[in-house]
Amino acid sequence: MASWVNVPEDSDFSLDNLPYGIFSTSHLSPRIGVAIGDQVLDLRDLAGAGVFDGLDFNTDTLQQATLNDYASQGCAVHRKVRLRLQELLRHDTTSGDVLRDHGQLRDRCLVSLEQAEMHLPMVIGDYTDHFIGLPHAKTSAEFLKPGSTIEELIPSFWDAPSAYHGRSSTVVVSGTPIHRPKGQTRVDGRTVSGFCQKLDFEVEFAAFISTGNEFGSSIAVDEAEDHIFGFVLLNDWSARDLQKNELAPFTSKNFATTISPWIVPLEALEHFRTTPTNGNRVLPDYLVQKKANSAYDIPVHATLGVDGHKYHVAECNTNNVVFSVAQMIAHHSRGGCALRPGDLLATGTISGPSKEREGCLMELSYSGTKPYTLSDNSDSSKTIQRTYLEDGDEVTFTSQLKHSDGRGNVGFGLCQGRILSGK
Amino acid sequence: MASWVNVPEDSDFSLDNLPYGIFSTSHLSPRIGVAIGDQVLDLRDLAGAGVFDGLDFNTDTLQQATLNDYASQGCAVHRKVRLRLQELLRHDTTSGDVLRDHGQLRDRCLVSLEQAEMHLPMVIGDYTDHFIGLPHAKTSAEFLKPGSTIEELIPSFWDAPSAYHGRSSTVVVSGTPIHRPKGQTRVDGRTVSGFCQKLDFEVEFAAFISTGNEFGSSIAVDEAEDHIFGFVLLNDWSARDLQKNELAPFTSKNFATTISPWIVPLEALEHFRTTPTNGNRVLPDYLVQKKANSAYDIPVHATLGVDGHKYHVAECNTNNVVFSVAQMIAHHSRGGCALRPGDLLATGTISGPSKEREGCLMELSYSGTKPYTLSDNSDSSKTIQRTYLEDGDEVTFTSQLKHSDGRGNVGFGLCQGRILSGK
Repeated sequence: MASWVNVPEDSDFSLDNLPYGIFSTSHLSPRIGVAIGDQVLDLRDLAGAGVFDGLDFNTDTLQQATLNDYASQGCAVHRKVRLRLQELLRHDTTSGDVLRDHGQLRDRCLVSLEQAEMHLPMVIGDYTDHFIGLPHAKTSAEFLKPGSTIEELIPSFWDAPSAYHGRSSTVVVSGTPIHRPKGQTRVDGRTVSGFCQKLDFEVEFAAFISTGNEFGSSIAVDEAEDHIFGFVLLNDWSARDLQKNELAPFTSKNFATTISPWIVPLEALEHFRTTPTNGNRVLPDYLVQKKANSAYDIPVHATLGVDGHKYHVAECNTNNVVFSVAQMIAHHSRGGCALRPGDLLATGTISGPSKEREGCLMELSYSGTKPYTLSDNSDSSKTIQRTYLEDGDEVTFTSQLKHSDGRGNVGFGLCQGRILSGK
Repeated sequence: MASWVNVPEDSDFSLDNLPYGIFSTSHLSPRIGVAIGDQVLDLRDLAGAGVFDGLDFNTDTLQQATLNDYASQGCAVHRKVRLRLQELLRHDTTSGDVLRDHGQLRDRCLVSLEQAEMHLPMVIGDYTDHFIGLPHAKTSAEFLKPGSTIEELIPSFWDAPSAYHGRSSTVVVSGTPIHRPKGQTRVDGRTVSGFCQKLDFEVEFAAFISTGNEFGSSIAVDEAEDHIFGFVLLNDWSARDLQKNELAPFTSKNFATTISPWIVPLEALEHFRTTPTNGNRVLPDYLVQKKANSAYDIPVHATLGVDGHKYHVAECNTNNVVFSVAQMIAHHSRGGCALRPGDLLATGTISGPSKEREGCLMELSYSGTKPYTLSDNSDSSKTIQRTYLEDGDEVTFTSQLKHSDGRGNVGFGLCQGRILSGK
């Protein structure tokens, strides 16, 4: 399905994607937009012009500077709006008079992506990070407690999606510089205070919640997907030396978490589903999901930018998980914990089972004991080495899914952050 | 300093207290109030009448349904408003015409506490629970990892305030019923899913943040108290059987956290200061606080209501901590983690070093192995026993501080919750 809007061949934003974000320009205040090709469609103005009238929802929710209220309208509304946008944007639209041929509205509502500054798409009430990637869990057990297995570290690893509560105040949008954090480490049994010396990234995949549940109630696993607004890429920056010193992730994680700016809807990822890799383990009833293809097969590329060069780090995949996002939601709310629109649930590191598929330097460098060699993307003979991140390093995650029938790509934009020296 | 408002002898709310809360009545929408004696002073109406004009701050912040924006005005503003309120409310006020003798405004702005329904006082962006109570840490080490010491569980226990991120969506105001949560436990090495069988409370003390810090910056320990809006009592409900099954507190804690409704300002607690009990340990510079009396000596009573009877559980104290709240703030923001107005920082369980001073049933019942005997408050010969909480049990924390010079009491109101059977 082609669009009359220019969609370059390498664009993440085909008509099959239509992700939501919050953007502003030098003369437009922050507002809701949908990416299409090399443009952003301004939904505030479009809603103001009555383009969504008759779709039976509160269109004021499209005229705000955050997506929370629109997300809370529910998945049936999101699907209707998506269909309406696809109809308006396809090259053979039968409603050309509404936007394509309506010069004034079209010129006002289509903004070049290059001019758009992206903001955090939702107000995040609570951020939860999970720990459901199998290869990462194996390595982490060894890192956190040398000689131990996953099951020794977390007895319930196979029985429920393990998680910890993260810090929502420091979730930032792609492009925000990351200051090297200070903290405490232990050297020879003595506490040392200063800048983190083992700064790392973690390649993750995350879901934003659309509609939540009441305090004291829970969400059934087979209904959980209806509570997902969409997905982003996520970098769970980690200070490994600080982490070894903490009972649960605290200062080692709470200094920053970066997300990609565009929330990709479920519908855009339907063709990229797979089963979680938990084998055929018997689960408690509340985690037994009817849908078999409940996880996603999405390769995520990590690159390191150094002095103007781009180096290949790893190719991870969202399929390296033992639970689906729906199972994460069911378990999270199981005891009556309220989820709210804008809550962010991340998978944890989605490392694959071999080198070059590992999603953090802790894994790639064998806990910092052996430097990892990275090749220049454009000249593989050119290499650099890293154990952990250095000041000036720019970490970028991208993912671009291609439909086999040439319908164009589905991607997330960049999840990028550059390390600044500490202050 | 006496007030012309009726302050019963057993009231928590003398003129020396003046805590902030959000209240509503059958005909008043939720709004900011200050408790005085058996009344709530409606600050929305008072601000609307111009009573705070000339104090050089944005009085619109007093006309909202949450305290976040008012708190963010900063401690200098809070002190000015406090002085203004004390002047207006004292029996020998020289500004009697403004409120005391202004029948119409007085009748409108003073609402009986009995008619007031209390709400969550602030929108909580992030909630962090600490682990800085010494006796509780000792018992917890044994509970979580039998045979282990604090230092084996958390090597950095003495070097920095240990903490984990909690769940902000389920922080509820006193009086909200608590449903027994469901979750996963392990029995004989097998996962069992069902209702929590070891439901517990934890007596804690907590601070609300007024002004925060920017992403990437930190708060100096000697300036940290200026970032505290005030204090509440907190019950960190805990599912012990679920907790033993988790790497970090997740479903074992995120189902509910109860706070008392009134935020008691720092100024009201000035006379009840003491030193933290961390001895004279050498700390990193960023945690060395000039003020010696940086902690508080506040006894907190826990009672259990069963079938209309009140049983004495324990008397804890906020002085059983190895770090001050200022040190908690300095460490929390050390790596650049942004704090925001409305963030909630709790101490962890403030158990004392002997039985009947322990702030949770896990401690009182030796990890559930020996029932704890509770005496009826009004007839000590009448007793009941508990290992963990039963359905119908009502847990209440209170604290009432008395000035030695008879100035009246400073208290927090109730921090109360009743266990309902699960659903």
